[in-house]
Amino acid sequence: MTAKHVVHHIPVCPFSQRLEILLALRGRDDAVEFRVVDITRPRDPELLAKTRGTTALPVLETPDGQILKESLVILRYLDEILDGPTLRRRDPLEHAVESMLVAREGPFTSAGYLFVMNQDRARRDEFADRLLAIYRDIDGFLREHSPDGPFLFKGFGLAEAVFTPMFKRFWFLDYYEDFSLPDGPDYDRVRAWKEACMTHPATHQVTEEEIIKLYYDYALGAGNGALPEGRRVSSFTFSSPWQDRPWPPRDKYAGTATDQALGLLPA
Amino acid sequence: MTAKHVVHHIPVCPFSQRLEILLALRGRDDAVEFRVVDITRPRDPELLAKTRGTTALPVLETPDGQILKESLVILRYLDEILDGPTLRRRDPLEHAVESMLVAREGPFTSAGYLFVMNQDRARRDEFADRLLAIYRDIDGFLREHSPDGPFLFKGFGLAEAVFTPMFKRFWFLDYYEDFSLPDGPDYDRVRAWKEACMTHPATHQVTEEEIIKLYYDYALGAGNGALPEGRRVSSFTFSSPWQDRPWPPRDKYAGTATDQALGLLPA
Repeated sequence: MTAKHVVHHIPVCPFSQRLEILLALRGRDDAVEFRVVDITRPRDPELLAKTRGTTALPVLETPDGQILKESLVILRYLDEILDGPTLRRRDPLEHAVESMLVAREGPFTSAGYLFVMNQDRARRDEFADRLLAIYRDIDGFLREHSPDGPFLFKGFGLAEAVFTPMFKRFWFLDYYEDFSLPDGPDYDRVRAWKEACMTHPATHQVTEEEIIKLYYDYALGAGNGALPEGRRVSSFTFSSPWQDRPWPPRDKYAGTATDQALGLLPA
Repeated sequence: MTAKHVVHHIPVCPFSQRLEILLALRGRDDAVEFRVVDITRPRDPELLAKTRGTTALPVLETPDGQILKESLVILRYLDEILDGPTLRRRDPLEHAVESMLVAREGPFTSAGYLFVMNQDRARRDEFADRLLAIYRDIDGFLREHSPDGPFLFKGFGLAEAVFTPMFKRFWFLDYYEDFSLPDGPDYDRVRAWKEACMTHPATHQVTEEEIIKLYYDYALGAGNGALPEGRRVSSFTFSSPWQDRPWPPRDKYAGTATDQALGLLPA
């Protein structure tokens, strides 16, 4: 592959970080040009025309203008066309096993986002329990298929590329929900997997501080660039760099801090 | 591949029919032994042990005892290991395109099942509208990627194997909900696709009469072998062959017919 693919993305989006991890592992950061979409502003009409009206990101544009959507579709596509050892296992049975783990990512992601966006303090433990049930299920899966670990197979592969960005996103649960995996054998295998994923050198595209600051509005129930009541600037804004802002208050249930206290200046 | 794979399945299950379609297209019905699970009875403990407690079907057991779950995982696995031309497109970009269509199957299936299981007559049109919105989306997708058709690519492929069993299952909507695709250009492309899928010679594992009779309980809101109130024998029972039963009443909102009127005898 020589011509350039373009990925339209939100820089800290987990669905886009998967692609960055793949490129880092292949040493091919040059193979894709990332173009930033600011989700706090109306979508560019030219991009909307290309995607035929849908606003979900990331979107990949091939050198001859074909549009691919869906993070996992794009990930598998790039994995097939780039030179070098694939993320996916070549053996069909091993690939089926990693695909069973990948199939758990949808419920996992959903449970974590519903948890962080919940605004009812009385329901906090219910959301935590749902997420923990999925962690236990993944723990059992890893004990069955890879008891010694840390990864599902020998190295960092497809399932790891799919889950790692979510593990990093869920820093927002540590911070805003004081959530952590309980001690004990029900979680030891998935804890080791998560740790190995998060510390792998190909996965350092985002930091905890960045996630905590940018996702503050999610913790207030406002997703995708929406604004919490009483605020005028989104925590996702690019106009006030997150590096310059103070850490947001941890107690999400107390309601939003002001734009000013958050270091969010009008664009 | 010479040794035998085993698929544990419900005979009329759409997620299992996909595998049968694949085998029919490859001329390899002999490659898999199908073992019937009666969902109206408690699950066999030996099978439960193999699946580690989960009851979802189909499940594939490899010749050396490995267990694979998830219909699409099993379908892709068999597609890779069987001799002959694959269902999936070999070209990575074409495969990404068919995968985008396959990704629409979850919402499509969900919309159809929620529709047939709805018990509130006043909400009937709301469920119909949700399903129609997905049909229009698929219509647009096919017009973009395969304006001339009838299939997404040259022949019956992966996306067709995934959707066809659902098209056939949705006979229950024609019958119990008097549902059909409206006339007009918004649906013409998907109508042609659906027609080509349903009449393909590799897809005749089930008949309309069988689906209508077995899925009667779904139309009464009772899925997965559960019993509607006032009934003692499931419409999924194997003890009273569907061929011997009369057609069920079409008006699902009037409540259930009796076991006797349905030709359902106690086992």
